Amino acid sequence: MSGGTLRVLPLGGLGEIGKNMTVVEYDDRIVVVDTGLRFPTAEQMGIDLVLPDFTYLRDRVEDIEAIVITHGHEDHLGALPWVLRELGTEDAPPVYGGPLAMAMARSKLDEHRIRDVVLEDVPDGETIEAGPFDIELIHMTHSIPDSNAVAITTDVGTVLITGDYKFDQTPVDGRPADMSRLAELGRDGVLLLCGDSTNADRPGYSPSEAGVGPHLEEVFSRCEGRIIVTSFASNIHRVQQVVDAAAALGRKVALVGRSMRKNVNIGRSLGHIELPDGILVQPREIDQFPDERIVIISTGSQGEPLSALRRMAHNDHRQVRLHAGDSVVFSATPIPGNERAVNETIDRLYHIGCDVITTADAPVHASGHGYQEELKLMLNLTRPRYVLPMHGDFKRIHLHAQLAESVGIDPDAIFQGENGLPLELDERGARWGDKVQSGMIFVDGVDIGDPADVALRDRRMLSADGIFIVVATISEQDGSSVAPPEVIFRGVPFLEQADELIEEIRGAVEDSLDAAAKDRVREVDLLQQQLHDDLAAFVYDRLKRRPMVLPVVVEV
Amino acid sequence: MSGGTLRVLPLGGLGEIGKNMTVVEYDDRIVVVDTGLRFPTAEQMGIDLVLPDFTYLRDRVEDIEAIVITHGHEDHLGALPWVLRELGTEDAPPVYGGPLAMAMARSKLDEHRIRDVVLEDVPDGETIEAGPFDIELIHMTHSIPDSNAVAITTDVGTVLITGDYKFDQTPVDGRPADMSRLAELGRDGVLLLCGDSTNADRPGYSPSEAGVGPHLEEVFSRCEGRIIVTSFASNIHRVQQVVDAAAALGRKVALVGRSMRKNVNIGRSLGHIELPDGILVQPREIDQFPDERIVIISTGSQGEPLSALRRMAHNDHRQVRLHAGDSVVFSATPIPGNERAVNETIDRLYHIGCDVITTADAPVHASGHGYQEELKLMLNLTRPRYVLPMHGDFKRIHLHAQLAESVGIDPDAIFQGENGLPLELDERGARWGDKVQSGMIFVDGVDIGDPADVALRDRRMLSADGIFIVVATISEQDGSSVAPPEVIFRGVPFLEQADELIEEIRGAVEDSLDAAAKDRVREVDLLQQQLHDDLAAFVYDRLKRRPMVLPVVVEV
Repeated sequence: MSGGTLRVLPLGGLGEIGKNMTVVEYDDRIVVVDTGLRFPTAEQMGIDLVLPDFTYLRDRVEDIEAIVITHGHEDHLGALPWVLRELGTEDAPPVYGGPLAMAMARSKLDEHRIRDVVLEDVPDGETIEAGPFDIELIHMTHSIPDSNAVAITTDVGTVLITGDYKFDQTPVDGRPADMSRLAELGRDGVLLLCGDSTNADRPGYSPSEAGVGPHLEEVFSRCEGRIIVTSFASNIHRVQQVVDAAAALGRKVALVGRSMRKNVNIGRSLGHIELPDGILVQPREIDQFPDERIVIISTGSQGEPLSALRRMAHNDHRQVRLHAGDSVVFSATPIPGNERAVNETIDRLYHIGCDVITTADAPVHASGHGYQEELKLMLNLTRPRYVLPMHGDFKRIHLHAQLAESVGIDPDAIFQGENGLPLELDERGARWGDKVQSGMIFVDGVDIGDPADVALRDRRMLSADGIFIVVATISEQDGSSVAPPEVIFRGVPFLEQADELIEEIRGAVEDSLDAAAKDRVREVDLLQQQLHDDLAAFVYDRLKRRPMVLPVVVEV
Repeated sequence: MSGGTLRVLPLGGLGEIGKNMTVVEYDDRIVVVDTGLRFPTAEQMGIDLVLPDFTYLRDRVEDIEAIVITHGHEDHLGALPWVLRELGTEDAPPVYGGPLAMAMARSKLDEHRIRDVVLEDVPDGETIEAGPFDIELIHMTHSIPDSNAVAITTDVGTVLITGDYKFDQTPVDGRPADMSRLAELGRDGVLLLCGDSTNADRPGYSPSEAGVGPHLEEVFSRCEGRIIVTSFASNIHRVQQVVDAAAALGRKVALVGRSMRKNVNIGRSLGHIELPDGILVQPREIDQFPDERIVIISTGSQGEPLSALRRMAHNDHRQVRLHAGDSVVFSATPIPGNERAVNETIDRLYHIGCDVITTADAPVHASGHGYQEELKLMLNLTRPRYVLPMHGDFKRIHLHAQLAESVGIDPDAIFQGENGLPLELDERGARWGDKVQSGMIFVDGVDIGDPADVALRDRRMLSADGIFIVVATISEQDGSSVAPPEVIFRGVPFLEQADELIEEIRGAVEDSLDAAAKDRVREVDLLQQQLHDDLAAFVYDRLKRRPMVLPVVVEV
């Protein structure tokens, strides 16, 4: 170790599951690892996506040597178009990653018409030099092919960011994680391990992805009608196994849902999936085959509102109409927060008369994240001096810290962090630095902004109690009312005597204007303020609710 | 069997978990069993409560002989004040139930200032005669004391509605379900069994409530600091067991949360809970005792926004400030849909540094609903001729039907129903009748109404994209604009060039008015319609979102 201070600053993924983004900084130069997003909750009204707040990078664009993407999942890659657009694509640093991650990044940037950014495939084992950083991708196994850990080496030492991983000893493509290279890094000395905590609460080892295929085939063999399988579209090896099980039982396969078709296409072009000749049929051809000869692979495993499966469950899919005798296999588990949407979808399927098979019925899914023994294996292989658990809510970060302690890491060398809190490492040791701005920003339509934006507060108010609009037209000369006040409301429910109430509000408007005239209040802003206060009080008194009250005073 | 037709009409609780309500009808007379509610989802914006749509009863008030409440939970009792108010309390039928359910009903009606309704305690074993119905309550075990099944007998036979139940052989109060009476009914002949399906997906038998106490004591004995236990306030026997475990370990007990204090008070007055002398301390006295001498029993096991535990987790509780070393025990599991809120609460607790113990760590909870073997036991005890599974989503109703088939009930005698679909029984057999209006009604503030209400559609629109309001003032004489248009928006986010856009919209308003003048459109409604269409198109073109557009034309 020598020289300056290395800073590792998580901007997302700590104290939450999703929107992973980490800044590694040395000698005033920066590498960004991952640019992930989260999907909004129902409380985040009308918001499309949630991104990490990357304000910290806005004035540092010229210092960024590279953006590295560990793998192609939305929670690691999805914010890339917005990050590049906001930081300016002209000065954008190159983006590095494995070939699949880069193909998915390319597709995303194309959708955003961002074309002037360099995306560079990095074969694993090769080292990129970027300013004071040596950057190396290390092959890992996960629920999407081409997942990597990132080793970033500076004068101070090596930081290993695991990305998402499991130690699958029998992956579908026959390429286990590069444990040999991890061990070598461990021998040479890892300064800091930033590890995936997603399954830090699960004891033992995660089941192998390859174990899912035989279970799928066994489940399929008991189905007499059509089979609909839903899984993550990016889980290309899972799709491969569904196809293989279908082929073994002489069934044709139809791919339904835009992202399913897109991911299979990308996966085929990169050699991650092989489809037997003639097995694919188009969704519109499904009805030409007997029920027992069809497997449909569909998006919608999370109950997403516009997904193919959700549409099928609501009898609202153009090409697939489900009926009694169909079997729907959920080859996925709900991401926390999606339970309700998934359960609603399942219940619609039962109502139609479908049979539904989930992981509660058969082991038709395997997690892409290592369990406790795998996290320990990572710690023992890499023998880091310091540990900063990542990718997890506070509970999982806490449990990951306990696991690190259990394999002999000094408790003082384990840092339970949070977004915006940088860990600073130099030859004297490691310690927290000063907190920087972090949190969420929202994508809403085409724009991004701050969740504290007044628009969102307004929407919350509008959504809870609606709005009253009052238009008063007064004379420019003497402030007297020249037309009866207009009273309009929207979203104020269950007004049984609406006409009567509107009459009363008109009266209240006139009273308020009269009072203002008496007090010689003539300035429109003041009039509007007074009208607002008088009417809000009046409406609350009558309705016991607080709709937004918006007075408009027009002078003619 | 003889005479007319018996109708059993579920108005709530089928195809859903919650808002249970069943109408039993014979000879034009009616008994209503349970009047339950549900809590709204985040998508049901601003709504306070969800009730079953009881339109069917509105013209039949005089035909209702009785309302019977099986037990005091919100999903069986909670809608009572609204049902009584809407049907008219003057002609209200008497309400029957066990003493605890009636005490809780009394408390609810008092809050709604409903005082002229007869609430009548029914000792179990006693039969009420109500028109053509003989009504009997049968003691059952559940997660609230004083839970009952209801047997309703007419000329046609006996309908047994189980309410919520488990067969707990060692209940905390030593009073197992009255299996003897159930068996007797079975021997005499049960025409129809309407059974609780809540845990139809769980194999085996539910664990006994009495087993929870020793586990709580064992968990408590390992805690060195304060202990906070959260459970349902109505689970009075659970509270008893927490108190007993605290007493055994020499800890004082504080009750925190309004409903916890209220339920313990009602439970004490009816003898369902006994507190050792001097064990209770007031919440404000907690800090006077060492951490290792305190157990706090708190509301908030479902992560409810205003609950005591949620406030504590957000450092926002007046009397209890949590700190590292505190242990929080969740003696409850999340009701489906509440997972996110519960997980968020747990994660806040970890962030504070609390230890959190849930059912994943120790068996500190037992469900109040029987598992599969108990549903079979009920079927075998009562040997019904027909079965109508209730209290469950479609999945659980389907699984309950399979259980009935597995114990030998004729598949044609098992009816998988839905809300609003009456089952008609007479001497010729059983069959579905014609569907009647059913579904949800919403409580919003003090009023109730239909979810299809335009106000809610408006709120959804307002919450997603906000609102533009445009006020155009025109001359009564010639329709010409007499003041510049006013443009106001709320809830439209992230407008970077708002001023510029408003100018453009003003221009668009004037263009639209000019076009209207050219076409000699003068009628205000038509003008507003045309303005709306022109502006909505303009705004969408510019913002790619669809806020509500509300033009107001004022003639002066």
